[in-house]
Amino acid sequence: MSKSLPKRSENYSEWYNELVKRADLAENSAVRGCMVIKPYGYSIWEKMQRALDDKFKETGHTNAYFPLFIPKSYLSKEASHVEGFAKECAVVTHYRLKNDPETGGVIVDPDAKLEEELIVRPTSETVIWSTYKNWIQSYRDLPLLINQWANVVRWEMRTRLFLRTAEFLWQEGHTAHATRLEAEEEARQMLEVYAQFAEEWMAVPVVKGVKTPNERFAGAENTYCIEAMMQDGKALQAGTSHFLGQNFAKAFDVKFQDKEGKLEHVWGTSWGVSTRLMGALIMAHSDDSGLVLPPKLAPIQVVIVPIYRNDEQLADITVKVKQIMQELRKRGISVKYDDSDAYKPGYKFAEYELKGVPVRLALGGRDLENGTIEVARRDTKTKETVALEGIEDHIQALLENIQASIYNKALAFREENTVKANSFDEFTKILDDKGGFILAHWDGTSETEEKIKELTKATIRCIPLDQEHEEGTCILTGKPSAGRVVFARAY
Amino acid sequence: MSKSLPKRSENYSEWYNELVKRADLAENSAVRGCMVIKPYGYSIWEKMQRALDDKFKETGHTNAYFPLFIPKSYLSKEASHVEGFAKECAVVTHYRLKNDPETGGVIVDPDAKLEEELIVRPTSETVIWSTYKNWIQSYRDLPLLINQWANVVRWEMRTRLFLRTAEFLWQEGHTAHATRLEAEEEARQMLEVYAQFAEEWMAVPVVKGVKTPNERFAGAENTYCIEAMMQDGKALQAGTSHFLGQNFAKAFDVKFQDKEGKLEHVWGTSWGVSTRLMGALIMAHSDDSGLVLPPKLAPIQVVIVPIYRNDEQLADITVKVKQIMQELRKRGISVKYDDSDAYKPGYKFAEYELKGVPVRLALGGRDLENGTIEVARRDTKTKETVALEGIEDHIQALLENIQASIYNKALAFREENTVKANSFDEFTKILDDKGGFILAHWDGTSETEEKIKELTKATIRCIPLDQEHEEGTCILTGKPSAGRVVFARAY
Repeated sequence: MSKSLPKRSENYSEWYNELVKRADLAENSAVRGCMVIKPYGYSIWEKMQRALDDKFKETGHTNAYFPLFIPKSYLSKEASHVEGFAKECAVVTHYRLKNDPETGGVIVDPDAKLEEELIVRPTSETVIWSTYKNWIQSYRDLPLLINQWANVVRWEMRTRLFLRTAEFLWQEGHTAHATRLEAEEEARQMLEVYAQFAEEWMAVPVVKGVKTPNERFAGAENTYCIEAMMQDGKALQAGTSHFLGQNFAKAFDVKFQDKEGKLEHVWGTSWGVSTRLMGALIMAHSDDSGLVLPPKLAPIQVVIVPIYRNDEQLADITVKVKQIMQELRKRGISVKYDDSDAYKPGYKFAEYELKGVPVRLALGGRDLENGTIEVARRDTKTKETVALEGIEDHIQALLENIQASIYNKALAFREENTVKANSFDEFTKILDDKGGFILAHWDGTSETEEKIKELTKATIRCIPLDQEHEEGTCILTGKPSAGRVVFARAY
Repeated sequence: MSKSLPKRSENYSEWYNELVKRADLAENSAVRGCMVIKPYGYSIWEKMQRALDDKFKETGHTNAYFPLFIPKSYLSKEASHVEGFAKECAVVTHYRLKNDPETGGVIVDPDAKLEEELIVRPTSETVIWSTYKNWIQSYRDLPLLINQWANVVRWEMRTRLFLRTAEFLWQEGHTAHATRLEAEEEARQMLEVYAQFAEEWMAVPVVKGVKTPNERFAGAENTYCIEAMMQDGKALQAGTSHFLGQNFAKAFDVKFQDKEGKLEHVWGTSWGVSTRLMGALIMAHSDDSGLVLPPKLAPIQVVIVPIYRNDEQLADITVKVKQIMQELRKRGISVKYDDSDAYKPGYKFAEYELKGVPVRLALGGRDLENGTIEVARRDTKTKETVALEGIEDHIQALLENIQASIYNKALAFREENTVKANSFDEFTKILDDKGGFILAHWDGTSETEEKIKELTKATIRCIPLDQEHEEGTCILTGKPSAGRVVFARAY
């Protein structure tokens, strides 16, 4: 609390790193690339989990749990899958330690070598499809709509809290269907679920689209994604939903007997969001004073700070505060009363600002006399004095207002920073000026996409689902194109 | 469904294994010792999690998340801890696979060897206390009351679904306190939370006690436990709560400045329950027809099966069923209507019996005319015909009755099978006759405890918290003892 945060305008990256630590969201652990999610950060993640889990269940999915370890041979069964994940996986080779008679220390027991190495799951398609083989015989067993909440490990070389960590928490849905159409619809439905969650809960507007073949999930026929814009103009992929075709069904020999008695391979999807969403939430809304949290995901929605000169005054204030708290809790609003005498009100105000508590109430002796209370909102940093009478209605409406307002602000920012470029010069100029999403024509080839990435560090975030037909020419090659795609530099 | 379950009286162990698979709770995976928790099993675990998590939060704890991996050197910092866990841990030695130019297959990349091996957490004391070192400076930072929901790995050689698996799911609480007394109170409080959960939710009566030094957690000064009795008379340890003293604080140098400004080591506790509870739940109540679930943990509390001759009759029945379902759901009762035409009522009845659905309603055309409905309860396998009028009240009361009744049955069974033995002959005779809990005198030494275990396979489950003072002599050595301890063969 002693030192203020770095400013976004001066060092966005430092601002993010410092904010994550100072707001008690997460920190680096002693294990390279693995983070500790601290209680305050975890309580936001729990709220995300609950909301997403409810949505998965509403759409007919159930949870299950599959092994952490994947036999090396399984990972190799789908060719492009192993290609995509082999380079960054944690490998278990032994199952015992022992005392080293020479040094007295503890060493890996060379006699306890596994016959086949195990990979710590980077994603669970292989182990899940090897299980589905036994669960699916007939069309009656389909669709199979399963989700898993789990930890996964990808041995990233450069890591950043929440955005890219060696271990992260996520959910992974894995579904099996009788027809291509049904699987494709499932993949798009789950994209829609993610988009709704991002917009309605996280207050983060997203572009829905399809990844180019280059950016596809290793093993998918089609990858749908939602892309969000951060305050530095960079894109962040906030969720993906994959149509797997019959790739994993073929790799693991998963067939079903259809109504006519014919054996067919099953069609699959997988979809996931991770603790990376925490990074998106932080970077989309927060400011130089700290976190800005949408009320729907704030662990504490309202904090009340008493302003008092003596114990007697504090007692009077506390009586009133208890009434307000009771009323707010009846409405399902989470509220904290901070009457600790260890810190001054000014210190507390700064602390709750840093932590992103959406609404702060301050009640003093004078307020009690006047029948008023001071209401401060975190997102706009504005204060007003309102009547104590009906304060609960006022706060309930205010929380809804804040939720909408944060979303609208992020949406306006994205719209301002989404522009069309019609030449490569214009494209690079916009990128270097202010970044953002650039709508541009592309000739549809992987070569051009890679060349643009090499030259500008911008990638095609997606081909938007609502892409309009528009004849044009590729910004790099001048070849014909029938519609614009979304380019950006990305996290 | 074609084959009936093995009988408990003939092969209890086979009965358990088959039941777990047939009731769709869990199955073995391709990875040695790792299980797949199937959707139906997982939904019971989710209910357990929710109830426990609520209790943890009510007692002031918050959740957080710590790394999956533990540096080998950390595990070694607490001497008895590494001794206890080194022999059964999964060791990560490499972080990459690569194509083998010789075979064309995929191999571990020898160039990607970790400088220090990582252990997949068997429990997280070490990684958590190494983190607490940075979180705790002053008495103001205490107590630290944190819980984690996570997967852990212990490389067990002989595994059984839920009871003993290489990977399992659990929660582990890790708290830090300023005084010995406060930490001891925390350890006992959490034991009480576990006992209440076991009795009130799982309907499993438990004996609360303290482990002997032999059976203590590796690194604890004192281990409290709850012990449940299964239907074969064997004991199952259903939860443990450890008073860690200052052991981990010393190993990781975690000190705090007290109110007088003096630096002191912190006092710690840890406590956990795991998916092993699923095994206890299954073995405590189920019968030869399948699962018996206490209503509070049943994913489906009530199932309704229509009995009809034609579509018209089905339509009439369905109208009435929808009304009942709406009313039940208003009361928070989960209810499923199984009107699928793929199976006959008799098949459905057997299926829901196997799955342990506490209440089954059957509604036919004749019932509608008479204004009645058939109500079957799973635990007693009894049926009655009751009036449709007021059926929702009837069911709500019935569910409460079943919950209590299952508990009482398990309690009566335990009481019948808890006996005193006053000589070693008597002791072995009871063990071989019917097993159960045997209350016997013991001289208090580890040698005697081990000798009895060697001779009889029975262990001291605990020194009960409510142990009465009673002068006696050890059943093996004849040496003096001041009270009886609980012996049993155990899972």
